[in-house]
Amino acid sequence: MITEPTLGRRGLALVLSSPSGAGKTSIARGLLDAEPELEMSVSVTTRPKRPGEVDGKDYHFIDSATFAKLVEDGELLEHATVFGNSYGTPREPVEQALASGHDVLFDIDWQGTQALSGEIPRDLVRVFILPPSGPELKRRLTQRAADSAEVIAGRMAKAAAEMSHYPEYDYVVVNRDLGKSIERVRTILAAERQRRDRITGLVEFVRGLQDEE
Amino acid sequence: MITEPTLGRRGLALVLSSPSGAGKTSIARGLLDAEPELEMSVSVTTRPKRPGEVDGKDYHFIDSATFAKLVEDGELLEHATVFGNSYGTPREPVEQALASGHDVLFDIDWQGTQALSGEIPRDLVRVFILPPSGPELKRRLTQRAADSAEVIAGRMAKAAAEMSHYPEYDYVVVNRDLGKSIERVRTILAAERQRRDRITGLVEFVRGLQDEE
Repeated sequence: MITEPTLGRRGLALVLSSPSGAGKTSIARGLLDAEPELEMSVSVTTRPKRPGEVDGKDYHFIDSATFAKLVEDGELLEHATVFGNSYGTPREPVEQALASGHDVLFDIDWQGTQALSGEIPRDLVRVFILPPSGPELKRRLTQRAADSAEVIAGRMAKAAAEMSHYPEYDYVVVNRDLGKSIERVRTILAAERQRRDRITGLVEFVRGLQDEE
Repeated sequence: MITEPTLGRRGLALVLSSPSGAGKTSIARGLLDAEPELEMSVSVTTRPKRPGEVDGKDYHFIDSATFAKLVEDGELLEHATVFGNSYGTPREPVEQALASGHDVLFDIDWQGTQALSGEIPRDLVRVFILPPSGPELKRRLTQRAADSAEVIAGRMAKAAAEMSHYPEYDYVVVNRDLGKSIERVRTILAAERQRRDRITGLVEFVRGLQDEE
């Protein structure tokens, strides 16, 4: 009896980035609901836990000394400090997930994406979400009627700066309709899973085909 | 009134290659039926027209002098000579289709794919189809019960040689089920259409988003 070599695959690291107001968080939630095999990367952070947050689910809450040690030991794939709080992506769970064929979702900005691109370039699938129009972006960034023109202008400037990095991404999704945008990202995920360089066991599989007499 | 910049896209060149017996021709037919926007590249050839073939649909039938002139003028994206007959892909219709956002399907071997990779690398999406198993490949290559062991071994050797080029392709589809394989290639097509570098007008679109006050 001939036993067929088994094909498997390496997981992929799906990065979603966007300016605030583009709908990225809703797309990420929809994706996680629709794709049971996709898991969210859980970051470490030094910021205090907020009410309702769960340690190990929302974040791994750690102190500054532990964070500094992780950075020093190269245990973070990317890290950043925002308003005095540090955030980072632990290397080991991501590499374990990818090696065992699980896909990992990252909700990170262009700086985190650049760092990941240096660390795990071949596993990365980078998707940039854009808002459908300028007026719609402004509407989404106007959270309260009382927001001053200056506050809104500041948010728009931050969004403009984030958007300037779209050329560093593999795919672009213009988020006109949430459901369709989720489907688009799922299609990207399904296709990327079939990339030759993610399939494991191909060398042996093809050798088996070639050796048939 | 603000007029929104329009996003478009450049077409892509979808290449299907496989050893004979892997089911590539059936997949190509199914794809063309399911994807009205996908058009088959029509080759030129110097071989005589066979009964039932339509000039301009199956091939453009041309004489050897015309073929030689096309090669000399760089008007063919790839060309090859098989059993004394020459075949080639005219450059202009492909480049026109891609520039106007139409996708083109190529049913070519690894040599043609290598040539296209040199000519239109950024437009290319290369898919390699593999048979599900050695015994199944052998069964498909045994066309008549009267085929001698030598004839079948020759076909298997040719298939083995073609398969040795799978690492030059972007995606691999193992054809266990025709319908599923067609769906897989359609998913690849749908995702590749959303690649950033195929979308046209993005620079102006993002500038419009950034200029909103």
